[in-house]
Amino acid sequence: MSTSADIGVTGLAVMGSNLARNFARNGYTVALHNRTPARTTALVEQHGDEGAFVPTTSAEEFVAALERPRRLMIMVKAGEPTDAVIREFAPLLEPGDVIIDGGNAHFEDTRRRERELRERGIHFVGTGVSGGEEGALNGPSIMPGGSVESYASLGPMLEKIAAKAKDGAPCTTHVGPDGAGHFVKMVHNGIEYADMQLIAEAYHLLREVAGYTPGQIAEVFRTWNRGRLDSYLIEITAEVLAHTDAATGKPFVDVVEDQAEQKGTGRWTVQIALDLGVPVSGIAEAVFARSLSGHAGLRAASRDLPGPHGAPLPQEHAAAFADQVEQALYASKIVSYTQGFHQIQAGSETYGWDIDLGKVAAIWRGGCIIRAAFLDRITAAYDGRPDLPSLLSDPKFADEIGGAQDDWRHVVSSAVKQGVPVPGFSAALAYYDALRAERLPAALTQAQRDFFGAHTYRRTDRDGAFHTLWGQDRSEVSAG
Amino acid sequence: MSTSADIGVTGLAVMGSNLARNFARNGYTVALHNRTPARTTALVEQHGDEGAFVPTTSAEEFVAALERPRRLMIMVKAGEPTDAVIREFAPLLEPGDVIIDGGNAHFEDTRRRERELRERGIHFVGTGVSGGEEGALNGPSIMPGGSVESYASLGPMLEKIAAKAKDGAPCTTHVGPDGAGHFVKMVHNGIEYADMQLIAEAYHLLREVAGYTPGQIAEVFRTWNRGRLDSYLIEITAEVLAHTDAATGKPFVDVVEDQAEQKGTGRWTVQIALDLGVPVSGIAEAVFARSLSGHAGLRAASRDLPGPHGAPLPQEHAAAFADQVEQALYASKIVSYTQGFHQIQAGSETYGWDIDLGKVAAIWRGGCIIRAAFLDRITAAYDGRPDLPSLLSDPKFADEIGGAQDDWRHVVSSAVKQGVPVPGFSAALAYYDALRAERLPAALTQAQRDFFGAHTYRRTDRDGAFHTLWGQDRSEVSAG
Repeated sequence: MSTSADIGVTGLAVMGSNLARNFARNGYTVALHNRTPARTTALVEQHGDEGAFVPTTSAEEFVAALERPRRLMIMVKAGEPTDAVIREFAPLLEPGDVIIDGGNAHFEDTRRRERELRERGIHFVGTGVSGGEEGALNGPSIMPGGSVESYASLGPMLEKIAAKAKDGAPCTTHVGPDGAGHFVKMVHNGIEYADMQLIAEAYHLLREVAGYTPGQIAEVFRTWNRGRLDSYLIEITAEVLAHTDAATGKPFVDVVEDQAEQKGTGRWTVQIALDLGVPVSGIAEAVFARSLSGHAGLRAASRDLPGPHGAPLPQEHAAAFADQVEQALYASKIVSYTQGFHQIQAGSETYGWDIDLGKVAAIWRGGCIIRAAFLDRITAAYDGRPDLPSLLSDPKFADEIGGAQDDWRHVVSSAVKQGVPVPGFSAALAYYDALRAERLPAALTQAQRDFFGAHTYRRTDRDGAFHTLWGQDRSEVSAG
Repeated sequence: MSTSADIGVTGLAVMGSNLARNFARNGYTVALHNRTPARTTALVEQHGDEGAFVPTTSAEEFVAALERPRRLMIMVKAGEPTDAVIREFAPLLEPGDVIIDGGNAHFEDTRRRERELRERGIHFVGTGVSGGEEGALNGPSIMPGGSVESYASLGPMLEKIAAKAKDGAPCTTHVGPDGAGHFVKMVHNGIEYADMQLIAEAYHLLREVAGYTPGQIAEVFRTWNRGRLDSYLIEITAEVLAHTDAATGKPFVDVVEDQAEQKGTGRWTVQIALDLGVPVSGIAEAVFARSLSGHAGLRAASRDLPGPHGAPLPQEHAAAFADQVEQALYASKIVSYTQGFHQIQAGSETYGWDIDLGKVAAIWRGGCIIRAAFLDRITAAYDGRPDLPSLLSDPKFADEIGGAQDDWRHVVSSAVKQGVPVPGFSAALAYYDALRAERLPAALTQAQRDFFGAHTYRRTDRDGAFHTLWGQDRSEVSAG
């Protein structure tokens, strides 16, 4: 019997353990390593019957257990811990071996690591893994970057352990070189923030404007989940809202502190979008909404600020309003994805990744947090026209958002008048209206910049840059 | 006659030249240096009669011309050029000398430079300078960071060349240690972006909803400039809108390409706010609006998306609507400043700068782009209560925004229904409504995070972190 393993996993916290088990359950022999051997032992003791594991207790033993070219997956914390593990293992590897980082690394770190290891002949694959603990075990969405050769070696294994979409396609693909996989995972998380914020606003409106109870709202979400909003996040929203707190008998959502935390990938998405010049207002508002919710002192000091005192709608109008909220949520969701895919497109151009946007949508159809029927339509949009300027240029999405816009406007307007904060719905609508505007007041902004800073402007009727001598006779001079 | 100069300026592009002339006009002897001596010669030839200049042609000659302890001001491009000049001059200086960087440096660079130079006994003052070319010459707003000792040496000179507020106070103060000055200048610029975006939205509404011409809107802004919105940016908006293009006879604003550019400090402000966990949605929407305006291809591809087809208001209702827009603009402006001052407060706490927020408002009253009567009221708010949790906690601002909110809601609602993008007004209103909300739907968001990622939650009725076993019997367990 050979102890030569198909892949090794080092870092056996819950994500690493579950991925290792997923590989083993799919017939691969998996070498195991952890800084403290207790976790390795525990994994084999508890789950050793699921497949072929090769427990090891040192870096040398771990590397020696791997079939060549070696495939070594790192599942430790992003940042310095990842670098430390690379420093430990890279000297033990040989040209052609593959290191896979399945943590939530910043794509710039992944670019650096890929470059450094490439010089030593080692392939470095930074891969996004979405789906949480449960996905890692039973099938996540996997977004690997790195060289074509690395995917040739690794891809078949990833395709086996990945989630499968309803059509049976595995939820993984070679996203692109170096940092492409982690970049796409980052934007996935940004979109997840936006999706969650939009759902929160829909809930808030159904509660405050329609006057529904959490239980009634759970039913509304269940209904939505049978239509075009069919998705994991809508599904679990219904579950959460239907849940009753055992200790108090109250709706569970009412006993949870209304402060949402974050781990940083949403923030990264917005920061990188700013560098790329891509407006991702929906994601930004979602990140800001979470941070605002956590400023308890500021909120307490602001609670007496005046607002409207509207009563909820009469119940006979509530159902119609709920339908309008569905339209607003769906339209805003189209905008979020439009912005997110714009960011991926911009990243792909900036870093030369040549990312296939339709394939990205396809591998998000299963396993990951934002999995949704909706993603099939994004894949179809890009399959129909790979150079689509934006999702809103797709005739079907344009039709849908056009059909939703009256209700969308009504819902935002109702929220504004009744004092319910809808930063996500509002930002999405403002983006839609700005994008389709024949003329934007940016002309005034640019003229002001010329006035106070001589930053020049372009004209609509001829080429070149111009400056008006504002402080003198206000004549116009060419500025090259 | 001594050639010993009170201060030296190296880097004699327009900002450096104008600051040097400002020092000289105020009676200081100013040593001059530039990488290429032609600029030095030109400055002395053209403006030598304005005061006492000591032109020099080498780094050694420049340093030798300075009275000790030396004050040496760098006016070169931010980033590597600034580091290069520091590397050139620092070896020629002695402990106790002061290097002043008056460029738009990132405050993290300023922190690093201050630390490195402090080890050599040299004071490093990173200072914001706002007011453009004209301000540099006739009196800018100056925001110096650095040691207390450096301000003792430099402050009296800065106070002399700075703009004076209407009450005669100089628009400069010791902002705080190391990067505090450049941080405050960065947020100043972020607020400037937000102010400009809000003005652009007000203009757009007066054009599209009230049906006013640019000339009529110029009159409206002139009226506003006599009230509580009295400010430089409102003033120049009127100037720009009243201007007619000589070549075409059209309103100038209509011949300017509607794409607004940016140089990066707005983007930095948002990126740093995200790191600090401060919601600055107004500034973010302003930055996004500029980048969106520049995506010409995307806009062209989106122009046919459906929207409402509302006619402008009947003219007898236009004036009343304009008054409501003033309320919306003013309320949104209060929110922008609330967010900006929150960011300064958070930066001050994070970096231990102990910034006096009232003084920051005071030194922005003159010289800089956002100078406004409004800032007197911010100073008064913080003077009255230095630990104000936020500007919205000040009774006067709370009263004003409370008085404005009905009109504000009406204006945003009108914009939404008529398809005019108002991302800034909407974001400000959503922030206001979120801050004053008794409960936010962040509880749902946090519950979802617990559902899919076991991220835990807190309860409203007892301390600790909890997790619900969603995949099992949905009982609740303590999570520490």
